[in-house]
Amino acid sequence: MNKHFFTSESVTKGHPDKICDQISDSVLDAIIAQDPYARVACECAVNTGLVLVMGEITTSGYVDISKIVRKTIKDIGYTRAKYGFDGSTCGIISSIDEQSSDIAMGVNKSLDSDDSTEEENGAGDQGIMFGFACNETEEYMPLPISLANKLAFKLTEVREDGTLDYLRPDGKTQVTVEYDGDKPVRVDTIVISTQHDEKVSLDTIKEDMINHVVKAVIDESLLDENTKYFINPTGRFVIGGPQGDSGLTGRKIIVDTYGGYARHGGGAFSGKDPTKVDRSASYMARYIAKNIVASGICDKIEIEVAYAIGVARPVSIYVNTYGTSKLSDEKIVEIINENFDLRPTRIIEHLDLRRPIYRKTAAYGHFGRNEFPWEKLDKAEVLKKYL
Amino acid sequence: MNKHFFTSESVTKGHPDKICDQISDSVLDAIIAQDPYARVACECAVNTGLVLVMGEITTSGYVDISKIVRKTIKDIGYTRAKYGFDGSTCGIISSIDEQSSDIAMGVNKSLDSDDSTEEENGAGDQGIMFGFACNETEEYMPLPISLANKLAFKLTEVREDGTLDYLRPDGKTQVTVEYDGDKPVRVDTIVISTQHDEKVSLDTIKEDMINHVVKAVIDESLLDENTKYFINPTGRFVIGGPQGDSGLTGRKIIVDTYGGYARHGGGAFSGKDPTKVDRSASYMARYIAKNIVASGICDKIEIEVAYAIGVARPVSIYVNTYGTSKLSDEKIVEIINENFDLRPTRIIEHLDLRRPIYRKTAAYGHFGRNEFPWEKLDKAEVLKKYL
Ligand SMILES: C[S@@+](CC[C@H](N)C(=O)[O-])C[C@H]1O[C@@H](n2cnc3c(N)ncnc32)[C@H](O)[C@@H]1O
Ligand SMILES: C[S@@+](CC[C@H](N)C(=O)[O-])C[C@H]1O[C@@H](n2cnc3c(N)ncnc32)[C@H](O)[C@@H]1O
Repeated sequence: MNKHFFTSESVTKGHPDKICDQISDSVLDAIIAQDPYARVACECAVNTGLVLVMGEITTSGYVDISKIVRKTIKDIGYTRAKYGFDGSTCGIISSIDEQSSDIAMGVNKSLDSDDSTEEENGAGDQGIMFGFACNETEEYMPLPISLANKLAFKLTEVREDGTLDYLRPDGKTQVTVEYDGDKPVRVDTIVISTQHDEKVSLDTIKEDMINHVVKAVIDESLLDENTKYFINPTGRFVIGGPQGDSGLTGRKIIVDTYGGYARHGGGAFSGKDPTKVDRSASYMARYIAKNIVASGICDKIEIEVAYAIGVARPVSIYVNTYGTSKLSDEKIVEIINENFDLRPTRIIEHLDLRRPIYRKTAAYGHFGRNEFPWEKLDKAEVLKKYL
Repeated sequence: MNKHFFTSESVTKGHPDKICDQISDSVLDAIIAQDPYARVACECAVNTGLVLVMGEITTSGYVDISKIVRKTIKDIGYTRAKYGFDGSTCGIISSIDEQSSDIAMGVNKSLDSDDSTEEENGAGDQGIMFGFACNETEEYMPLPISLANKLAFKLTEVREDGTLDYLRPDGKTQVTVEYDGDKPVRVDTIVISTQHDEKVSLDTIKEDMINHVVKAVIDESLLDENTKYFINPTGRFVIGGPQGDSGLTGRKIIVDTYGGYARHGGGAFSGKDPTKVDRSASYMARYIAKNIVASGICDKIEIEVAYAIGVARPVSIYVNTYGTSKLSDEKIVEIINENFDLRPTRIIEHLDLRRPIYRKTAAYGHFGRNEFPWEKLDKAEVLKKYL
């Protein structure tokens, strides 16, 4: 296919679903900092003036859930009732049990354990996970999601640093990129919706978004006179945050990953400790994919892994290189098996996941940000030997 | 690529996330039956003994939320505390507002309306949606998700009809299919976890699952002596439903669609009235994809559409036929534009979506089931003329 369009979206950290993701991961961080082996599954729901925190948590540590919730909401910027939400005064309901003893039994010792003395966890759930990388951008991410995340991040930055003091925390962005074959050539359409103070005019918002957000983020070579802009297309976005839309943890899984450019297994990340393969195996699959592309083996790769609950080794591995590979896909599966250990305990060790690193993953994407261990390129050299 | 494996999973209607989807869609159905033009966004969360229903609903009708919640839970089969949940005695919190007037303004009249007298809604949100179809199965669905859904459905059937009276409502299934090129040739691995009464032995469960579920659903030509079975791999699954795992609406979006075989835009379906393009445009994209494959134009197609909130026409359309098409992908985009109207109001009309048809979509997949209007093949003939 020659010319075509691909669209991805993102949201700011003030979006209701993202508030939930950040609360879930803040709770996880607080627990894992005290007890690296804690089992945590923390879900959250927000609505007008209300936060529900629930889940299954087994830990030797202690955390004050309400305090974490209030701090997270205030850090995001919801500090006044007129922003639609106020971390100091919202209601908080918390309903937390221990991890099911039946599940714990399966996870504590894997069915395919080789009876060595080493600890070998079974996967914390069944499921499928994908990892992806391509050389379309420096961060080995597809351009549409990369730009959508950068716009969302900038939208928050100009609110927080006071550049545009009428902005409020909730916001969404969307970018349509035109491709010529496999090459992104221009930005065709940009959608930005941002919550705002009621006193500002739509014209001011439009102008400011283009000057302070779009132009600050997107290289001008990608913008042209045919680029279309939809800025606050509803005309008004004063009511925002949980007052305008309910939020739930795990409801931005495409924003969290590859913007729909790669496939998705359905599992969410936030609030889950790394024995949950939904999270750890997705991180590992990204790590493997990125190192393979960086080694020069292919331009683009998608990896699927699948697990059975209570079993350590994946039940299947699948790779797709979209015809861009110097080696066969079967050969790449072999290379993965030789160089990477996909058992949960080994992933956790290799990526050093028993640390409080999760809250900052919970907005602006889990991938393509070098600060995270699964973005390291320390295997690319080794993989070059297969070429 | 020659031989490879692809895995998809499904869950039963007793899975905690699916309980939420069914509650959300039961509320939607009850409202839309009274008021076809109601705006509904209904989210749900469940945990041990607790249900939270929240969202944004604007309607002239009246519904008794608690009654709907209790009936839905009892219909699913959670009728006794020892099943982990009881529809008669669980706590219910409900927190519902009207749709934000700022959003309603954008949705009521689209920005790109041509000022005709006809009603023309803007899209209820921004976002990206995918539709997919292939001729791998009779229902134009990929085989792995098709089998995973059928196993989950059968698992519920043998519980409800009393064949296996020790079964309880919660369950998960997973199927790994081996492909030779594009052709599915055998089933490599099956994972089934089912909640059960504590008195039954693991061996009995294993045997019954293979005889009454697997063999009842999967053609024996696909099973061989190398097919691997993981039945209740944790060893015990007595604690189940919301007591074992919290649930949220919209957390099974890959089970709901193509099992990860096609891409996903991230938007959930359940609880959303059809002005929400997350739902209606995904249904329409499936309808278009299925009719195109049935017309013989290609063997496999994925369609992406993207919207801006408050705007009726999609901002982009993208198709991928994986090299299986007799026409170019650009030509197919043209054909779509000529034959299908993707504005929300037109989708709603064409697929007749202002009716209480949603609850039954909320378990075992939204696609590949002929009972739904988006599965009609009434455009395939017309599309043949392009060949
Ligand atoms: C449009 S709402 C989803 C639909 C909503 N639940 C309803 O019932 O209408 C999704 C997101 O859009 C953004 N949003 C809220 N109000 C908006 C407005 N007036 N204009 C544009 N975007 C808005 C917020 O980020 C919100 O979380
Ligand atoms: C394993 S749980 C997810 C993890 C859970 N939140 C935790 O904290 O451990 C996901 C699903 O697995 C199924 N499940 C629950 N208990 C199970 C068990 N003992 N063995 C196998 N599957 C189980 C249920 O369908 C449940 O919704």
